[in-house]
Amino acid sequence: MMPNADPLLHDDDKPHEECGVFGVWNTTDASALTALGLHALQHRGQEAAGIVSLDEKGIFHAHKGLGLVGENFGDAKVMAGLPGRASIGHNRYATTGETALRNVQPLYADFEFGGFAVAHNGNLTNAFVLKRALVRRGCLFQSTTDSEVFVHLIAISLYTTVLDRLIDALKQVQGAYSLVALHNGALIGARDPLGVRPLVLGRLPAKMGGGYVLASETCALDIVGADFQRDIEPGEIVVIDDTGLHSTKPFGKVASRFCIFEYIYFARPDSVTEGTPVYATRKSIGAELARESHVEADVVVPVPDSGVPAAMGYASEAGIPFELGIIRNHYVGRTFIEPTDQIRNLGVKLKHSANRPILAGKRVILVDDSIVRGTTSRKIVEMVRQAGATEVHMRISSPPTTHSCYYGIDTPERSQLMAAQHDVAEMARIIGVDSLAFISLDGLYRALGKEGRDPKKPAYCDACFTGEYAIPLTDWQANEEKQLSLLQPAAQ
Amino acid sequence: MMPNADPLLHDDDKPHEECGVFGVWNTTDASALTALGLHALQHRGQEAAGIVSLDEKGIFHAHKGLGLVGENFGDAKVMAGLPGRASIGHNRYATTGETALRNVQPLYADFEFGGFAVAHNGNLTNAFVLKRALVRRGCLFQSTTDSEVFVHLIAISLYTTVLDRLIDALKQVQGAYSLVALHNGALIGARDPLGVRPLVLGRLPAKMGGGYVLASETCALDIVGADFQRDIEPGEIVVIDDTGLHSTKPFGKVASRFCIFEYIYFARPDSVTEGTPVYATRKSIGAELARESHVEADVVVPVPDSGVPAAMGYASEAGIPFELGIIRNHYVGRTFIEPTDQIRNLGVKLKHSANRPILAGKRVILVDDSIVRGTTSRKIVEMVRQAGATEVHMRISSPPTTHSCYYGIDTPERSQLMAAQHDVAEMARIIGVDSLAFISLDGLYRALGKEGRDPKKPAYCDACFTGEYAIPLTDWQANEEKQLSLLQPAAQ
Amino acid sequence: MMPNADPLLHDDDKPHEECGVFGVWNTTDASALTALGLHALQHRGQEAAGIVSLDEKGIFHAHKGLGLVGENFGDAKVMAGLPGRASIGHNRYATTGETALRNVQPLYADFEFGGFAVAHNGNLTNAFVLKRALVRRGCLFQSTTDSEVFVHLIAISLYTTVLDRLIDALKQVQGAYSLVALHNGALIGARDPLGVRPLVLGRLPAKMGGGYVLASETCALDIVGADFQRDIEPGEIVVIDDTGLHSTKPFGKVASRFCIFEYIYFARPDSVTEGTPVYATRKSIGAELARESHVEADVVVPVPDSGVPAAMGYASEAGIPFELGIIRNHYVGRTFIEPTDQIRNLGVKLKHSANRPILAGKRVILVDDSIVRGTTSRKIVEMVRQAGATEVHMRISSPPTTHSCYYGIDTPERSQLMAAQHDVAEMARIIGVDSLAFISLDGLYRALGKEGRDPKKPAYCDACFTGEYAIPLTDWQANEEKQLSLLQPAAQ
Amino acid sequence: MMPNADPLLHDDDKPHEECGVFGVWNTTDASALTALGLHALQHRGQEAAGIVSLDEKGIFHAHKGLGLVGENFGDAKVMAGLPGRASIGHNRYATTGETALRNVQPLYADFEFGGFAVAHNGNLTNAFVLKRALVRRGCLFQSTTDSEVFVHLIAISLYTTVLDRLIDALKQVQGAYSLVALHNGALIGARDPLGVRPLVLGRLPAKMGGGYVLASETCALDIVGADFQRDIEPGEIVVIDDTGLHSTKPFGKVASRFCIFEYIYFARPDSVTEGTPVYATRKSIGAELARESHVEADVVVPVPDSGVPAAMGYASEAGIPFELGIIRNHYVGRTFIEPTDQIRNLGVKLKHSANRPILAGKRVILVDDSIVRGTTSRKIVEMVRQAGATEVHMRISSPPTTHSCYYGIDTPERSQLMAAQHDVAEMARIIGVDSLAFISLDGLYRALGKEGRDPKKPAYCDACFTGEYAIPLTDWQANEEKQLSLLQPAAQ
Repeated sequence: MMPNADPLLHDDDKPHEECGVFGVWNTTDASALTALGLHALQHRGQEAAGIVSLDEKGIFHAHKGLGLVGENFGDAKVMAGLPGRASIGHNRYATTGETALRNVQPLYADFEFGGFAVAHNGNLTNAFVLKRALVRRGCLFQSTTDSEVFVHLIAISLYTTVLDRLIDALKQVQGAYSLVALHNGALIGARDPLGVRPLVLGRLPAKMGGGYVLASETCALDIVGADFQRDIEPGEIVVIDDTGLHSTKPFGKVASRFCIFEYIYFARPDSVTEGTPVYATRKSIGAELARESHVEADVVVPVPDSGVPAAMGYASEAGIPFELGIIRNHYVGRTFIEPTDQIRNLGVKLKHSANRPILAGKRVILVDDSIVRGTTSRKIVEMVRQAGATEVHMRISSPPTTHSCYYGIDTPERSQLMAAQHDVAEMARIIGVDSLAFISLDGLYRALGKEGRDPKKPAYCDACFTGEYAIPLTDWQANEEKQLSLLQPAAQ
Repeated sequence: MMPNADPLLHDDDKPHEECGVFGVWNTTDASALTALGLHALQHRGQEAAGIVSLDEKGIFHAHKGLGLVGENFGDAKVMAGLPGRASIGHNRYATTGETALRNVQPLYADFEFGGFAVAHNGNLTNAFVLKRALVRRGCLFQSTTDSEVFVHLIAISLYTTVLDRLIDALKQVQGAYSLVALHNGALIGARDPLGVRPLVLGRLPAKMGGGYVLASETCALDIVGADFQRDIEPGEIVVIDDTGLHSTKPFGKVASRFCIFEYIYFARPDSVTEGTPVYATRKSIGAELARESHVEADVVVPVPDSGVPAAMGYASEAGIPFELGIIRNHYVGRTFIEPTDQIRNLGVKLKHSANRPILAGKRVILVDDSIVRGTTSRKIVEMVRQAGATEVHMRISSPPTTHSCYYGIDTPERSQLMAAQHDVAEMARIIGVDSLAFISLDGLYRALGKEGRDPKKPAYCDACFTGEYAIPLTDWQANEEKQLSLLQPAAQ
Repeated sequence: MMPNADPLLHDDDKPHEECGVFGVWNTTDASALTALGLHALQHRGQEAAGIVSLDEKGIFHAHKGLGLVGENFGDAKVMAGLPGRASIGHNRYATTGETALRNVQPLYADFEFGGFAVAHNGNLTNAFVLKRALVRRGCLFQSTTDSEVFVHLIAISLYTTVLDRLIDALKQVQGAYSLVALHNGALIGARDPLGVRPLVLGRLPAKMGGGYVLASETCALDIVGADFQRDIEPGEIVVIDDTGLHSTKPFGKVASRFCIFEYIYFARPDSVTEGTPVYATRKSIGAELARESHVEADVVVPVPDSGVPAAMGYASEAGIPFELGIIRNHYVGRTFIEPTDQIRNLGVKLKHSANRPILAGKRVILVDDSIVRGTTSRKIVEMVRQAGATEVHMRISSPPTTHSCYYGIDTPERSQLMAAQHDVAEMARIIGVDSLAFISLDGLYRALGKEGRDPKKPAYCDACFTGEYAIPLTDWQANEEKQLSLLQPAAQ
Repeated sequence: MMPNADPLLHDDDKPHEECGVFGVWNTTDASALTALGLHALQHRGQEAAGIVSLDEKGIFHAHKGLGLVGENFGDAKVMAGLPGRASIGHNRYATTGETALRNVQPLYADFEFGGFAVAHNGNLTNAFVLKRALVRRGCLFQSTTDSEVFVHLIAISLYTTVLDRLIDALKQVQGAYSLVALHNGALIGARDPLGVRPLVLGRLPAKMGGGYVLASETCALDIVGADFQRDIEPGEIVVIDDTGLHSTKPFGKVASRFCIFEYIYFARPDSVTEGTPVYATRKSIGAELARESHVEADVVVPVPDSGVPAAMGYASEAGIPFELGIIRNHYVGRTFIEPTDQIRNLGVKLKHSANRPILAGKRVILVDDSIVRGTTSRKIVEMVRQAGATEVHMRISSPPTTHSCYYGIDTPERSQLMAAQHDVAEMARIIGVDSLAFISLDGLYRALGKEGRDPKKPAYCDACFTGEYAIPLTDWQANEEKQLSLLQPAAQ
């Protein structure tokens, strides 16, 4: 059950988003709506899913499982075990070795004031420093997730109300996070002071009770029939209870730094993020890219699925036909054939296949959204050449990914980032293309409707392209050991 | 584990292809190549998969399982249990109630001359008549598949050689089929006399041993690195042994009637079928459709994924922007939430979501490949309207599906075919569109490069559009009961 | 899931019975009674179980599974899928490699006259000769069980009625068998002409409908509340239908040769077999053994569980205290620790442990029912000595097992039978006992109430002790290959 | 997979022991020895098992699972994941609803001083009072087991060394417990001040490294080849590290009160507990019972398996033949047929069957070890009468069970204890016997070698017979709610 255990399948040229969150207050079928919302957010994490519900008597119910939402919450008996009018849920992406059930969110704890469940998307940058201090104090950790740090900080807080305890905890943590929490009295949503990770507020129609919904993206509002109200603001905490929605901003005013990579790759194309529609933005990025790095060619071919809108924008701007020259196979299961040497040499791509009649004898512009390690790009270029392309030009709808993300996206270390180790000319040679171009940082900001990047006060978090980390990397700077002597599970 | 058990998921507006087949002779890793080939053919059947290999000592090995190829053949131990230089495999689509492991192909039997394994794509139209006679003779049937009729006919044939026995059997069956078979001495491929179902021949490069490959589509040759040689011809039997390839045509010359629906929907877009590239053909059909049924609009939006190429052709011909106004969610597992009334009323679409910013306030042309029951079309139109479209015009890249297929495609009975029960105006009203148009039969043939349909000698099998069944429907005409008293399995 | 895969667990010093059968006609809950009956017969086969039922409309239903009866038929949904007033069932013991689901009985076939299900206990000695002829005729075999030979012979019989076809089939087979069969009209029971394997007839009380029951042993009548009527006679066929019970004896009169090993080991102690209570018989055998091979000692200790009654009889006759000096651990699962060298040297016995306070400093008489390979005996003796026994005398309640059984009991080949390779003195030395004695053949017959063994006309089948095989060993004498080119399953 | 979910199977006339523990220090194959030891202790808990090992680098490894030891630790890969020269393990009995994996011991925690694992047998009587205080302090509980209270108390202790922290924790808890713990430096064993629950010390032979072993019973020493050294004393803590064994007694001198029910039912007959062999003791109890309550009869029949030694003692003392008149079926899986009304009326006993030839026409003395609810006894008596017994006299080798146990044995509430609700005469009538007698309390003490019970200073804990609870029942007296708002899992 190791996900992506096979090298033929592992798509190491894509960063991985860590999570999607969803919460709903005051509606029938709260858990069913949460399952639907998590399904719409499935692209943000496929390794595990969990839902906690709160019933009318104040009792919490939970179900978690490894795998997709539909695999875990498709059973009527499971859903019947999650009664109540309030619920939160979580999709998880997990790196190898941590896919244990005990790490699947939402986390739950019994506090003096009653039960409390929490789920978050993002990453704390001082989690290990905090954890070490908490362990010294006698706190017992059961999982290896950042979320548990939140929970312990709330548990030991000297404040009385849940909200004050939560603020107390949030003031101690550093990092990028959007969280949803549930206790016997309220649904809570919060974003980090810079608003790096997304969180939106929606409302169910009156006929469904008019309850509030929190979700990582608007696509999750759409699926449950909720109307988009607004983004939760950076640093805002919203408390939703039976008297309505209450907002507080304990961190004062901080300039927002939303994650620019959400636009490039993570967010679903039908979502609207921070007021900007994702699909149209990707087309604009493609058009800007075409203006910046024109090349003569016969066809513009996207690397599906994520490269499609940018390729459409590129093709339209460049006046070159857009064609589906690469077909994506969506029937890829979780494991596949361990490749023998012969098969490895075939350069088999289980996810992608070349549409030979489109590529043979053509000068091809390949449009993709990013290059991480470069291994997948190299295989795709090889496949396109084997299909008969006479020239292959690669255009990337993001600047070179030169730095790791510590704010909730699973990028490899710098040593494995191709753009951190090589200049563009070398990358082109390694990948095997006739030309390679990335969109410029200013071009990217222009496509997002800015004048360009204001180096003094950038509108977005773009640390993966610039190395300018807006939130302190405390654990890494303190050279903390990332792991305490945590229990190793035996093989299953 | 019931596939498609949930009404929210079941995509009843698409016909279902019954199978994909693959075979390879004389190569190392024969089973691994078969698994790759079946993976490339996964779109032809997702319910079950099976592989039989033949090792150097003449011993056959088999593994079958419910689910995707990657789920069944991703384990190194399983693959190690399938040694040998020759192998055949099968992907199965199965209707509910028949998804028993005993029905998963390839079928295997011990004959007087040794072991024999066979897998086929298609449907026999006199299977029940033959089966009744065989049971009377004392033959014991273990499965409910047509393939077993082949096997018994071969077993009781009075001819001596395997090839003569196979010809003897094929002369008794009626129907549409492409089959691959394996015995201790040869890999065999065969197509029915009209060549309704596809089968192609490829050859591995010299460095992989130069062995032959048989597959339902060329995309399965591509993935294993085999060069396309030619289509197996209608009525042709090829025997591939260590002396090479031997062809025989026991049925004489019959006019070909290839399944036209393979071009419209079934075949993968990167395949080349009967000399015609599928992707380009679908774009041509879309362009022809645009010429036939023009309408003023703001955007052309495909119903993904199958409607995409036709929509591109339509948009280009009509000069209207092509936009991804509907997003497909590929993370749909095999089961999902049993819908409560409230959720049912939401009209939730788990597979599709509306890209609101693209649709709101727009006149939309929706392009899809076919309408079967019409239920999915109605839901999609409702979703597009809820997203704010001011007009919705639906264009279908096939003629109205007015008749059931008896040649290997799982279409519902005529009573459930919307186009068999309603005229186009009524269909438009029921589906809820402002206008509805199907491509004409002649237009379809033109897009395929013909002058139009020659009613005396049509180039394709188009019975689903015309009711002209080129192969006798013996079982149905004889009013045979389809089921003998077959054993009912208890619940699992 | 390989049963007994671990050398620490495999109990190779016991022969394995191959099966238990059960059938019932005309009662509500027929399948539930069959499940109970099979549970009572679980000692006759633990690898797999199957039940077929026949409902009021004449439709057959089936469920089969690997493992114990309770593991497969404990689910209400499964039982609900087995409706009807008639049912047959089967417990299977299977040798490694053949534990495939396709081999689990009852077997079922669609005949010209309708459905037919059959299950048997025993072994055919000309199965392969018959199978080869049937395959030549064009019959397809799906399993590797003898039962399928019955089914094909019935299928191709030229007789008209089911009974005549069955007699036709039985006249062609050789071997030892008790079978139950079910078709749409009757429950059938049959024993081979010599009556080697057991089959008893019972009747449900009037309040349960008064229907007939067939079972391998009386303990299965007891559990369903049926009254014992009589043994089915050697060579008798009973047909039970709605008009009552009809008996026929197509083989004429043959002297009975019931399996003597049923008394020694196989049958459950609370069963009454061929008119003789098993428990009391075992005590008599123990007493006879004490008379034949007296030795001075402090305690008589049985090897549990099967050696207990004989040890009680021995102790009572010898006037030496009976003590539970060896404890059996009944919580042995199906797999266990792969022994490291260190653990192997411990001589760990997972099934048995020494009751040290009873054994230390004592002269011990160990009573067991048989010695097959001798490996378990050796380990038990070593364990008893390590516990401090000063002398160990082993007494065996059967004569030396010098020959393999071909009549339904899974004994190893002669080369692995300790008593076929060594005389008693050598055996004692290898096993490590101070003395070893087996009951004499005449003594065994005496304990069974005979005057001794009549060498001209022995009352029982005792081929495993004498090598006198009453039924021809056709397959072995014809030196038939036991296996055709049967399909090998890949690893699961 | 609900254990004992079926009323046909549930053996509610037996109390359930809660656990078995095992630990080993300084040997190769430490985990394999622990698995063997737990296998020998399987009778003390069958619902779940867990093992923690400590490798040479000081890293802890764990594996836990529901089910038997052999089902969870029979896989070589699992065992390879548990390396190291030290290990502890636990067998768990769990009441319905708590069989969650998170409750399976050993529990593990990361402390400031490193990792710490602990497993215990028994029950704390002030766990909820302590837990409430700990939650108020901010401690987060992940399981519902008593063991976690130990862990938190150790975590927050202000002492420095592990041993001092453990003593600090033990001084705060009340209850009956034997525990084993492991940290990076030592294996620890401890018994509660009264020594209610057992714990023994053994030592591996020199060729196995001479390491120490801790186990609930001596039978677990036997299986791993360890020599029995001594019982851990009441209130003793032993610390076993590389310098040897260190003993401390922080509670001073307290009179021992070992659980008398271990002798009657729980302990394995081949164990020696507190210097007394269990098997011989049970025979003595049977003999004492015969002297106290003689009755004329033909046979003495044990209710197997636990009643066997007492019945042997009874029969020998009374001079009445001992016979196995009831046969136990050991092939009872975890679930079984949901009984229909008809089957319920059969009074089917899946675990026991009557040996009719022994019982018919006889005056029978049934010997069992205890009567809890009385339901099983009633069914067994009915079965014995149906088999033809003319008289049934029941003799019980313990005094009437009139009070619940709060010290680690799962007895039902008093309202369900037959002896708490009825006098012996009524019990006899309800159970349906001709006479019923229990051993007297003094008789029981006599059989254990005492002069009788000293009411001022009883040698054993006999609260279940007397209601004299030696350890305060704090939680129950404080009328604490037993449950905080613990998370409810959804159905699996």
